Amino acid sequence: MGVVLPFEENRAEPGIESLVALVAADMGRVNDMILSRTGSDVTMIPEVANHLISSGGKRLRPMLTLATGILSGYEGEGHVKLAASVEFMHTATLLHDDVVDESDMRRGKPAARIKWGNEASVLVGDFLLGQAFRMMVEVGSLRALQILSDAAAIIAEGEVMQLAAAKNVETGEDAYLRIIEAKTAELFGAACEVGPVIAGRPEAEARAARDYGMALGIAFQLVDDALDYGGAAAALGKNVGDDFREGKITLPVVLSLRRGSDADRAFFRRTLERGEIREGDLEEALGIMRRTKALEDTVARARDYGRRAVAALDVHPDGPMKRALVEAVAFCIARAY
Amino acid sequence: MGVVLPFEENRAEPGIESLVALVAADMGRVNDMILSRTGSDVTMIPEVANHLISSGGKRLRPMLTLATGILSGYEGEGHVKLAASVEFMHTATLLHDDVVDESDMRRGKPAARIKWGNEASVLVGDFLLGQAFRMMVEVGSLRALQILSDAAAIIAEGEVMQLAAAKNVETGEDAYLRIIEAKTAELFGAACEVGPVIAGRPEAEARAARDYGMALGIAFQLVDDALDYGGAAAALGKNVGDDFREGKITLPVVLSLRRGSDADRAFFRRTLERGEIREGDLEEALGIMRRTKALEDTVARARDYGRRAVAALDVHPDGPMKRALVEAVAFCIARAY
Repeated sequence: MGVVLPFEENRAEPGIESLVALVAADMGRVNDMILSRTGSDVTMIPEVANHLISSGGKRLRPMLTLATGILSGYEGEGHVKLAASVEFMHTATLLHDDVVDESDMRRGKPAARIKWGNEASVLVGDFLLGQAFRMMVEVGSLRALQILSDAAAIIAEGEVMQLAAAKNVETGEDAYLRIIEAKTAELFGAACEVGPVIAGRPEAEARAARDYGMALGIAFQLVDDALDYGGAAAALGKNVGDDFREGKITLPVVLSLRRGSDADRAFFRRTLERGEIREGDLEEALGIMRRTKALEDTVARARDYGRRAVAALDVHPDGPMKRALVEAVAFCIARAY
Repeated sequence: MGVVLPFEENRAEPGIESLVALVAADMGRVNDMILSRTGSDVTMIPEVANHLISSGGKRLRPMLTLATGILSGYEGEGHVKLAASVEFMHTATLLHDDVVDESDMRRGKPAARIKWGNEASVLVGDFLLGQAFRMMVEVGSLRALQILSDAAAIIAEGEVMQLAAAKNVETGEDAYLRIIEAKTAELFGAACEVGPVIAGRPEAEARAARDYGMALGIAFQLVDDALDYGGAAAALGKNVGDDFREGKITLPVVLSLRRGSDADRAFFRRTLERGEIREGDLEEALGIMRRTKALEDTVARARDYGRRAVAALDVHPDGPMKRALVEAVAFCIARAY
């Protein structure tokens, strides 16, 4: 199983080591903050929260808040709390997503809902969201609060859009992009935007940071969509074929439906819309995607968004943090290979 | 079915008509705000939200925010948005609670999760929480934001505490009070506190408003607990015996366990802890509660907290709003009869 994705021109393996190194000192404080703010006398809360938080996520989103703060010359302590808030918002979304998707696995471990039940996943998610807002309030920037509370509502809206579009093979590329803009890219955009905002930088820089984050977020999600049909998925602790089995309409499916034969469309209607999945159907789906070049074009679109992300950094002169942010884009896209 | 609760001294039926009348003009604007902020292009969101919001809740919590704002001489528009935020926080909690409790009914109608699924209840709850924070941010009071974000985290903490205590017959009265302080009273307290806060009143008045709300919230929850074992429950659209069937340890059970015989304790261990419920067990539970005076003492404690709520209003001179708030306490307690 697994599909061979086309090689990219650049064969030097891009990493996020430079980004990790440049934010390392602040990230240590973010990790302390995360640990202290998941603390509660109610022992189930740190148990459930830390099961997920300590399960080896890359913490890309909080790193972006720190990075854009540092890039903006911010010298206070607020970016640490905002970064921790962003990670809590993300963790809350994952806990609730697992309940919505009835997932059994997350980051290669049993999902929290399997160990503690749906109830605990819902409620600990709510607790983390509450703690996220508490930390934002402590930072005291109303503009940052506005950006992140907007994001909280938009992310949930995107998740409901996805729920409504699930199993609907009529979903077009535009509709799909609107869903992932809301459910995934919005938090990347907000995470990046609050950096220049708390540094008091001009609106144009805040806008550029947001554009960078949004484009990176879309690229990130598109690569994820491709990975769900193969590639390095296993190494990332993802189950290949999860989206397929859940009837999720992602870009590889949208492109296959548009370019495939009537028989291909009938196949996706049976498997995704009606949920009648038989032995060998995932391989059949992969065959259609290969034939319609759906996976390679999904990754090609991710690369387009990656270029947009890099272009948004034009407002900044060359420097180590800017280069690290460019590399982070390449890293997200290289995950597909 | 149903248990006869002891008559209270005061037989004139206390209502919340005065409170309703005094906040009517502002409440109209709160209702408009609620309607406009549940709006979304994603049609499932207003459908799910309005199913619950328009199902005849009394909107006691937002009324309290308006009332304490008016009592504090507040003349701006912020109390309207904060009141709507409080109602959204409450609605989000109800949507998530139904998923946690696997409830079929809410306010005499099928629960949203029955009509649209657990997924929609979780995600629309998240959306409403996000919208609540957006409105708070628009009001621009960092102190009000702090109070309400503290409340959001504490409520979730209380819900997890309740989850951990479920089916545990060792739960004592103190532990139980800590749970309902967090999961119910905290939002009443916060709803009341933000009124004087945005009016810029001295800390002592904000503290008094909070004390009023907290005591009222505890009284409200204790009466609810008693109603779950009978009384006017049917008229309120509640199923008698829900807490019993779900194995919830509430004050009537705590008091029965403390005062009952070994056989009574064995009965509650079988039914609540092990969930082995047979025909006639609810009637048996009611019999134990009658014998141990568990229901009348639950209501007596509610009356004590009601007195504390009224005493907290001492900082204010007599006037129509203060009288309406006193009546609201009597109304909450009279629901038990």
